Amino acid sequence: MTDQIVEKVAVQTEESRNQGRRAFLKGSAAVAGGVMFTKAASAAEGAGYDAKKAVAPYAGKEEITTVLQDGAARKTLGFGVRKYPYGMPSPFEKEVQRRTLEWLTPDSMASITMTPLHQLHGIITPNGLHFERFHGGVPTINPDEHRLVIHGLVERPLIFTMDDLKRFPSVSRIHFVECPANGAMEWKGVQLNSVQWTHGMMSCVEYTGVRLSDLLKEAGIKPEGKWIIPEGADAAGMARSIPLDLAMDDCFIAYAQNGEALRREQGYPIRLVVPGCEANMWVKYLRRIQVHDVPMQHREETSKYTELMPDGTAQRFSWYMEANSVITYPSPDFKMEGPGKYFLRGLAWSGRGKVAHVDISVDGGKTWKEAHFTSPVLDKAWTRFELEWDWDGSEAFLMSRVTDETGYVQPPMPQMRKLEGTNNVYHRTAMVTWRVHAWEDGKNGGLIENVQY
Amino acid sequence: MTDQIVEKVAVQTEESRNQGRRAFLKGSAAVAGGVMFTKAASAAEGAGYDAKKAVAPYAGKEEITTVLQDGAARKTLGFGVRKYPYGMPSPFEKEVQRRTLEWLTPDSMASITMTPLHQLHGIITPNGLHFERFHGGVPTINPDEHRLVIHGLVERPLIFTMDDLKRFPSVSRIHFVECPANGAMEWKGVQLNSVQWTHGMMSCVEYTGVRLSDLLKEAGIKPEGKWIIPEGADAAGMARSIPLDLAMDDCFIAYAQNGEALRREQGYPIRLVVPGCEANMWVKYLRRIQVHDVPMQHREETSKYTELMPDGTAQRFSWYMEANSVITYPSPDFKMEGPGKYFLRGLAWSGRGKVAHVDISVDGGKTWKEAHFTSPVLDKAWTRFELEWDWDGSEAFLMSRVTDETGYVQPPMPQMRKLEGTNNVYHRTAMVTWRVHAWEDGKNGGLIENVQY
Repeated sequence: MTDQIVEKVAVQTEESRNQGRRAFLKGSAAVAGGVMFTKAASAAEGAGYDAKKAVAPYAGKEEITTVLQDGAARKTLGFGVRKYPYGMPSPFEKEVQRRTLEWLTPDSMASITMTPLHQLHGIITPNGLHFERFHGGVPTINPDEHRLVIHGLVERPLIFTMDDLKRFPSVSRIHFVECPANGAMEWKGVQLNSVQWTHGMMSCVEYTGVRLSDLLKEAGIKPEGKWIIPEGADAAGMARSIPLDLAMDDCFIAYAQNGEALRREQGYPIRLVVPGCEANMWVKYLRRIQVHDVPMQHREETSKYTELMPDGTAQRFSWYMEANSVITYPSPDFKMEGPGKYFLRGLAWSGRGKVAHVDISVDGGKTWKEAHFTSPVLDKAWTRFELEWDWDGSEAFLMSRVTDETGYVQPPMPQMRKLEGTNNVYHRTAMVTWRVHAWEDGKNGGLIENVQY
Repeated sequence: MTDQIVEKVAVQTEESRNQGRRAFLKGSAAVAGGVMFTKAASAAEGAGYDAKKAVAPYAGKEEITTVLQDGAARKTLGFGVRKYPYGMPSPFEKEVQRRTLEWLTPDSMASITMTPLHQLHGIITPNGLHFERFHGGVPTINPDEHRLVIHGLVERPLIFTMDDLKRFPSVSRIHFVECPANGAMEWKGVQLNSVQWTHGMMSCVEYTGVRLSDLLKEAGIKPEGKWIIPEGADAAGMARSIPLDLAMDDCFIAYAQNGEALRREQGYPIRLVVPGCEANMWVKYLRRIQVHDVPMQHREETSKYTELMPDGTAQRFSWYMEANSVITYPSPDFKMEGPGKYFLRGLAWSGRGKVAHVDISVDGGKTWKEAHFTSPVLDKAWTRFELEWDWDGSEAFLMSRVTDETGYVQPPMPQMRKLEGTNNVYHRTAMVTWRVHAWEDGKNGGLIENVQY
């Protein structure tokens, strides 16, 4: 399928931060959207009117009169009910979609698409835009024929139909789900000029399902049972090893996302939900859970999802996604249209619990201001933040830094790189920086790009 | 468009509750789903195993072995990423859709479709299933050309583009939205045998937008300005009168629902959000807000959305949706498959704030037990409740009763009817009753139907 968006790829920063943090935009400089000012801004002269406000839309009596005329939509009937028994977005939103990087994985059956974070609002990801990650393509499973087996070191091996599962007590919670490879391409330096590419391997939805602990108690864990091995019914046979303590905590088996049945791309008819932990543990198309005395050493926890350290050893079982944040607006898909008031916006989240606070810097980390939250603050879920910013048009370096309720502070990239080197792929949760080019900078004025230091 | 589901219409209850509450199912007795027991329930004999548990899925070693074989999905690759850049539900879920009653309104351009509440989970309604209500069809508006005007008794008439609106501080909140005609068909007696028909004129999503108070302050309300008149750009020119105090409270102008742009059916590109109040005030395709000294007396607040009282007068300006609740499972779309343990589930909500508690009766209101909540409890949003029920197979009458944080208790239907008669159409928020037919009742055993008393 042809992707209509030009991939914007920035070269790596050539010099260190202290040497000026210059960076170059290479390839297409086209931007997908613009931060627009109303042209008539300076015409505003009402009593007490603050011209520095975010908008200045008064445009004189004539234009008001024009705008108040009945438009085309008033003069024709629209379409009727049930044109879309299951609705779809407006055709004007057709560019808001999941996208992949063609070069990222060699095969569409074992690849990923990213959620367009820069186009989203609030903390809920609509089901149609939830990121995808498959290891063997997406099966279309008949829920009437699907079974979940719990076996191994249990008192009573159990077989569940979908109806059986729905008859257990239910739980509905809003959680983010994040691939540990989110940001993988940024370990060695900046590569990608869109928050959809740097952070889009995650989504946040409301899941409904059955507590895993209820099912495991029903089966009765034998004393020697210390690990669970969930396994998917798809061609990949995805499996992971999860310690029993974690499994008995707040995990559940979801049959719904955002109110309706799971989507196929997210594991229809059932997937495991492991709140706060990396997404590959959230096994999709879940067909069995084996209770075991030792971890499984499955291929997806040896060949993949391990972290190659500078000394050549590999970190394994890095379950939790540490606190992370990103400014989504403005970000490289946008272009500043002039100095003025902006509201910096973004997402913060933590696999360890709730977001406690978020600080924002516009000068590359020299000074910080606390942002406020514009959404509910929920456990292991996205939190939206916002901060007023009067941009004077000079070069700026936008950064966000989250602190979670455990006190963990999101590190800068040099600190993360110093500890883990640059050969690692997973759990790159350090801060990112958006460089805003000075307004007077010729044709690049107002451009926003991903830089590192 | 052909609706594949047979409409199930029950005749009105013929006798009063005290005379036995008999009711008859008329027309098709087909049910859309069933509450299934695993057939092998009685085979369970593990140590400590409680056969009365909701499920009893142990089915012997042979079946476990069979189920553990690799199934069809394991043996073939599924489809790859970006088959659906904007995703859709599994084809197995195609019956989960918005539906209308053909006889309810004479024209599809001024009609309604209902959300399939019995098929939903959690508190978020997916955008594709959000109920629809149009007065003049759905326009497809180009957001680049759309304008919002604030004028009338203001210091500074203002014109906003969509980009202008997005540059204001944002707010993201989860709220229910409900047509005051929800339940309208039930005033005189029971008519409809599905919770999609009795309560489906509502949904609950996360909205993101701009506080209305910020925009009104920007315009500067003149001292004589006491009402706002929001008006839509569609063929219906929907308008309502809203007192300034209410407008300055927690209203906002939404450009997003569940993360993405509003759907056309819900007002793309912008709609007013009036939390807790009847949905017709949430003007869609919002094109202007006139500040006025008196209410407008628009046709939609004189011919419609007024409540005809027994004495012939009409109640007007019934803004708030009072506390309400309904059991969605089991409900008339399901059929009990035998005595055993069930978890009664439903939705509660209040236009006045948070849900405080929900009681459930299985004996038609003689005795009550408190349900627990299985979702976050948010302001003016749906709350999910659940209660364990050991059904002995005898006739039962299921009811739920919500109390909100103001202390308001949901009334029984006779009380509401005594006050408001039966000619009213709107704000029927009284309790409903689902009759469960006794298990031994021949072919009707386990059927569930909507009854009144």
